Parts: sequence; C-alpha cells; structure tokens
Amino acid sequence: MSSTNQTHKLCMIPGPVEFHEDVLAAMSTLSTSHVSADFISIFGESIELLRKIVFTAKGQPFVVSGSGTLGWDMVASNLVEPNEDVLVLNSGYFGDSFSACIETYGGKVTQIKAPIGDKPSLQEISEILKTKSFKAITITHVDTSTGVLSDIKEIAQLVKEQSPKTLVIVDGVCSVGVEEIRMDEWGLDLVMTASQKALGVPPGLTIETFKQRKAPVTSYFASWNNWLPIMNAYEARKGMYFATPPVQLIYALNTSLKQITSVPLEKRFEQHKKMSKYVKDTIEELGLKMLPKSRDMAANGMTAVYYPAPLTAADLLPKVASNNIVIAGGLHKAIASQYFRIGHMGISVTEPDRKHLEETISALKVSLKDLGYTANL
Amino acid sequence: MSSTNQTHKLCMIPGPVEFHEDVLAAMSTLSTSHVSADFISIFGESIELLRKIVFTAKGQPFVVSGSGTLGWDMVASNLVEPNEDVLVLNSGYFGDSFSACIETYGGKVTQIKAPIGDKPSLQEISEILKTKSFKAITITHVDTSTGVLSDIKEIAQLVKEQSPKTLVIVDGVCSVGVEEIRMDEWGLDLVMTASQKALGVPPGLTIETFKQRKAPVTSYFASWNNWLPIMNAYEARKGMYFATPPVQLIYALNTSLKQITSVPLEKRFEQHKKMSKYVKDTIEELGLKMLPKSRDMAANGMTAVYYPAPLTAADLLPKVASNNIVIAGGLHKAIASQYFRIGHMGISVTEPDRKHLEETISALKVSLKDLGYTANL
Repeated sequence: MSSTNQTHKLCMIPGPVEFHEDVLAAMSTLSTSHVSADFISIFGESIELLRKIVFTAKGQPFVVSGSGTLGWDMVASNLVEPNEDVLVLNSGYFGDSFSACIETYGGKVTQIKAPIGDKPSLQEISEILKTKSFKAITITHVDTSTGVLSDIKEIAQLVKEQSPKTLVIVDGVCSVGVEEIRMDEWGLDLVMTASQKALGVPPGLTIETFKQRKAPVTSYFASWNNWLPIMNAYEARKGMYFATPPVQLIYALNTSLKQITSVPLEKRFEQHKKMSKYVKDTIEELGLKMLPKSRDMAANGMTAVYYPAPLTAADLLPKVASNNIVIAGGLHKAIASQYFRIGHMGISVTEPDRKHLEETISALKVSLKDLGYTANL
Repeated sequence: MSSTNQTHKLCMIPGPVEFHEDVLAAMSTLSTSHVSADFISIFGESIELLRKIVFTAKGQPFVVSGSGTLGWDMVASNLVEPNEDVLVLNSGYFGDSFSACIETYGGKVTQIKAPIGDKPSLQEISEILKTKSFKAITITHVDTSTGVLSDIKEIAQLVKEQSPKTLVIVDGVCSVGVEEIRMDEWGLDLVMTASQKALGVPPGLTIETFKQRKAPVTSYFASWNNWLPIMNAYEARKGMYFATPPVQLIYALNTSLKQITSVPLEKRFEQHKKMSKYVKDTIEELGLKMLPKSRDMAANGMTAVYYPAPLTAADLLPKVASNNIVIAGGLHKAIASQYFRIGHMGISVTEPDRKHLEETISALKVSLKDLGYTANL
C-alpha cells in the first residue's frame, strides 16, 4: 500500500475527483483475460450503460484507453477530412488545445474566442455560420480552465436550424455525469468524455459521416476503423482483439456506471447544482471574485476563484493542503497565477454524508484567516 | 469487490499476467492530484527506473496512457516522415499491424515476412538493406501471436555496420522485463513496451532525429512535441500539464519497477529462461508440437503450442479453465484455431513458491487426459 494512503488529503480538484471505495476495489480486480466471459460481460454492459448517461438510444459508445485528449484525436482524425472547415467555440484553454489537435490532422479551424470568463454568444455563432460551410462545430461544455459552462442545447438548436449538415461535437470531459446532456433530444452528434481514458459517444449519424469519408483516416490507434468492430463485438458479448483494453479500469468504470445509473440522472444533476450553489454562495459571501462573468454561465462541477490580493498560489494552496484538502491552481495560461479551482463532482456531491464540501469550505476559511485575509470572514 | 475475485482463475496468458498484491494495492491508491508532490515524486522516479530495465543511461522514457498499440503510433508519427522507407521484420501478426500503422502515417513499408514459426534471417536482412536507404527498421522482439523470439542484438549489429543511419526500433511489448535488452550497448534507438499503456523508451539519438524532422508531426495525442516537456518536467520533480496522466496506474508501475529493479536483472532473465525450459520440456515430453521452428527462436515469456488432433480450442480451453487456469487461444489470423498459448512472465516466474507454472502444467495434463489425449501422459 502506498504511503499516501496513510495521510490522505481530500482531492477536491476538477479531476481526478475522489473515488468510491467500490470503484477503487474494482481497480484491484485480480488479473483477468480481456477475452474471458467475465470481462466480456462487464465491458459489454459498460458500453450499454454509457448510453444512459447522455440519454441516447442509438449512439455508439467507444471505450478506449488513453487520456481525454485522445478523444480530440478521435474527432479530428475520424470526422474531419483535410481542408474541411471546423468552428471551435473557445471559452478557455481547452478551446486552444482542441484547435491545435484539429489542425494537426489537416482541418481548417475558425475560432470564436471569448474573453476569459465569458463564452461565445449565440449571435456571434449565428453570424459566423453564415460565412462558411462548416463540417463541424466544437463546444467545450465546461472549460476546466475557467469553469465557464456553455449552453449546448441552445447552440445545437441554432446549428440544426441554420446549418443542419454541421456536426455538433461536445467536449464533455468536465461535464458528463454532472450537467444535463440529452444527445438524441438535443441533436448532439458526438459527446466525448474522460476518466483517465477517453470515452467517445457518437450517435448513428456521426458513424454514417465517418463511413462516408473519402480520405483515409490519419491516425491508427484513434481510428474508428479499428475500434468499431471491437465495440460491436463486446456489446454482442463476444471477445475481439485490436489492442489490449485496460481491464481493471473497465471494471472500475462498470462499477461507477452502475452506481450513477442506479438513481435518476435528474436527481444527480440537481445534487450537483445544489452543491455548486452552496460553494459559490460561500465564495461570494467571503467577498471573493469568480472567473465566470455571471453565475448563469458557471459550471456546476467546479468553481474557479481569483485569489484576493495580496494572496498568491504559493500562500493559499499549501495552507489549504496543510488542512488536508487539495485544491487546484489556475490552468489558463494567460492568468494561471491569479486564481484557484475547487472541484465538486461525483461522490463528494452525491454522498453528502461524507462532508467533503463542508470540510473543503472550512479548510478554505481557516486558511484565508491564517493568511490574514479578513474580509467577510 | 468484483465477483471474479471470489473464484479467481490464474491468468496464464501472454498478457495480462498475474499481478503482485502490492501492485494491485497501488491500483487502488486513493485519489491524488496529478500535480501533487507525492505523485510527482512517484512519476519522476518511475521515469528513472525505466532506464534500468533496458540498460540505458541516456534514453528518454515516455510514460503515456494507452494500449501498447499507441507505441506504434508514437514511432510512426514522430520518427517516420511521409514517403520515407521503413523495413519491417515480420515474425507474426504484430508485424502486419505495425506495418499498417506506419502506412497510416505515410511511411513506405517493405516487409520481410517469415513463414509462421520462423523469423527473417540475417542474410535476408542484409540483402534488402542494400536495395534502399531505410529511415528505420522495426523488429518485433517477441511476436505474441507466434512466440517467435528475434535476435535484436545481432540484427542491430548488422544494421549499424551496413546502414548506420537506419534507426533500430524494437517492439518489446512481450519482451521488456523478460528478455535481455541492452539499449546502449547494442545500439538500439527505440524500445517500446506496454502494460495496459505504452511505454516508449527512446535514447538521445532518436530524440535528435525527432528534433531534425522537417514535416510536422501528424498525430496530436502521440506527439513527442507535447509529451517531451512533460517527461522532462516530472523527471525534474516538477508538475506540468498536457493530458491527465493515469495516476493509479503510475503508482502501480512504480511499485512494479521497484520490485523488478530490486534484484539484478540478469537473475530475472535467467529465471524466465529456466521456467520457459520447464514448460517447453514438458510440452515436448507430452508429444505436442510448438509453433516456433526451433527451440533457439522461442520466446522465454510464453509458449505457443498446436492442439493435438483431433482436439480444438472449444475442447481444451474450457477444460483447462474448469481446472482454474486460463490459457489463451491462437492469435495469428492464418492459424488462430489451431494452437494455444501459455504465458509465463512476472511473478508467476520470479516467485516460484506461488506454484503458478506447476499448477498450469498440471491443469493442462489433467485436461488433456480428460479429453482422451493419451500420448505420453
């Protein structure tokens, strides 16, 4: 057992989040063949359960070993052909990176880049959609670097009305399982997420687009030509080999998906909204300023907050850690040193008896006081 | 806890192998920030320890989340420029796949394809090296589909003499930690391996080649432009972000690397040779035929064996499993139904008190007998 387990500090950052004991136990599942009946059943069921998380009946989940970033490679290498135009809505650092990924595979990126703490407006999107025929539009649902939440339902509606052939791609890394996402009802073509691995969840339409592409797929590991037969096989409860799946992680995923789908998702979303309100109300009461321009564009799974002058990361983060809570520094390159981030997702929210958020807020208050910040304490 | 833990069958396939209890415990390390001091220290140390496994002082390890297949994408997208020639030595299924990966990224593949159970000869390699200027040669050290072991030392020597600019790339997925690999001494330019994730271990020379490439890197997630600063940062014991690393897997990797490097590697290689001899001697005594043409080209971490007529996979594999041992079916597409594979790597070999191999051989004998196979039983 690693030494960190003996003095565990709560990991209250916008991912990795705190894990349920049963999920961690599944991580140490004894070695099992990736083509054994036991594992095939777990993998197949996980693929099915993923559809429920984003309310899709026809979507084709992909469960592939890799970081969330690999999901971008899947989008860029499978759905965008060289020289096709892609509209990237930029509400923070991850818009920049997704753009770089698309350009690597030959896509031509047009960005609407919002000021830090803001998001592209519907009007801006509408105007730019008139200028070109875009193969796809990408939306960072929650930009983890700013905590800004985009309204994917409204944007999808606009795109479907104005440019119905444009694929609506949602980067849901920091939102799937936290925010409401109705793939089929809202007309989303692809939703990707991650949990140390990339989960891409494209519906039939997207697969059709993929099947109609003319240029060869420009990645090997990320290619749906390689992965689609594997997903179909496991869902049909057959084993098939392209690359060895991360067996233990998929047992853990299965455990987590069963937990998540055991209560109505609507309740889960409400819980996240409620806990987010509790954190953000407290931050405002303390007189601290948040990154998102307004509360209605703030994510429900995380909170990004400016340090109150003259405090810095070097003061606050170690002080909070000394109170056994780990929060995160800034990530947006332009202002990374000026703010911190608190994650409030998963069991820290859905199992309030654990008191994770209370302990986090308490540690934050004590730390601020110890550092001489007194406004509203 | 998953139900498989209660009726665990030994996983004696050529990967995933049986894991040490301490490695599994590390898999359930409580959530830890990927930029925390604790994790940075574990990640940095793991990068250093990897050099020891392949005897390199100057090599640059990359530890990236993904299947072993992603290692091919790293080679093909970072080291090979479009239209450059690559010589692929094919000793089984994995030579075909590596070729497909290189071609995806624009490399021009020439293959020397050995008959099943054989490997390209030094003479064939020497002759083909005279025909073109190859950017790289790839060698599957152990082809997991056939159990054929290639002599990377001899091949590297030949290439360095005859075509010194050609990069020597070793696919060590089924050999690193089992077979002797001396990167610096033998002049290997890149060794890749996997353990539910790709570990690429290129030395300084390869990084130089990478830095001199003219065409842009054609992958995003696999690009060393993105990963090199991260590896340098963690080794210098600083956190840095490109994509979230698989924290728990890296704790497990660290635990395993410390175990492996706690005894001289020479002893480890000898143990694997000895246990491989025990398995192969038994197979021969039973009158069964192995895939590799001769014992001197058979891998030490696995054994591939033809079913004795009239037995098939449908007879033998479930029967062995009913004796609590999981062995693997065939993987080489041309003859997949005709043979089975036993893995003998890691703790099943280095900790003989566990009796994994004895139990496996015993289960195999009992199963063959039950199925009516009597020759030499």
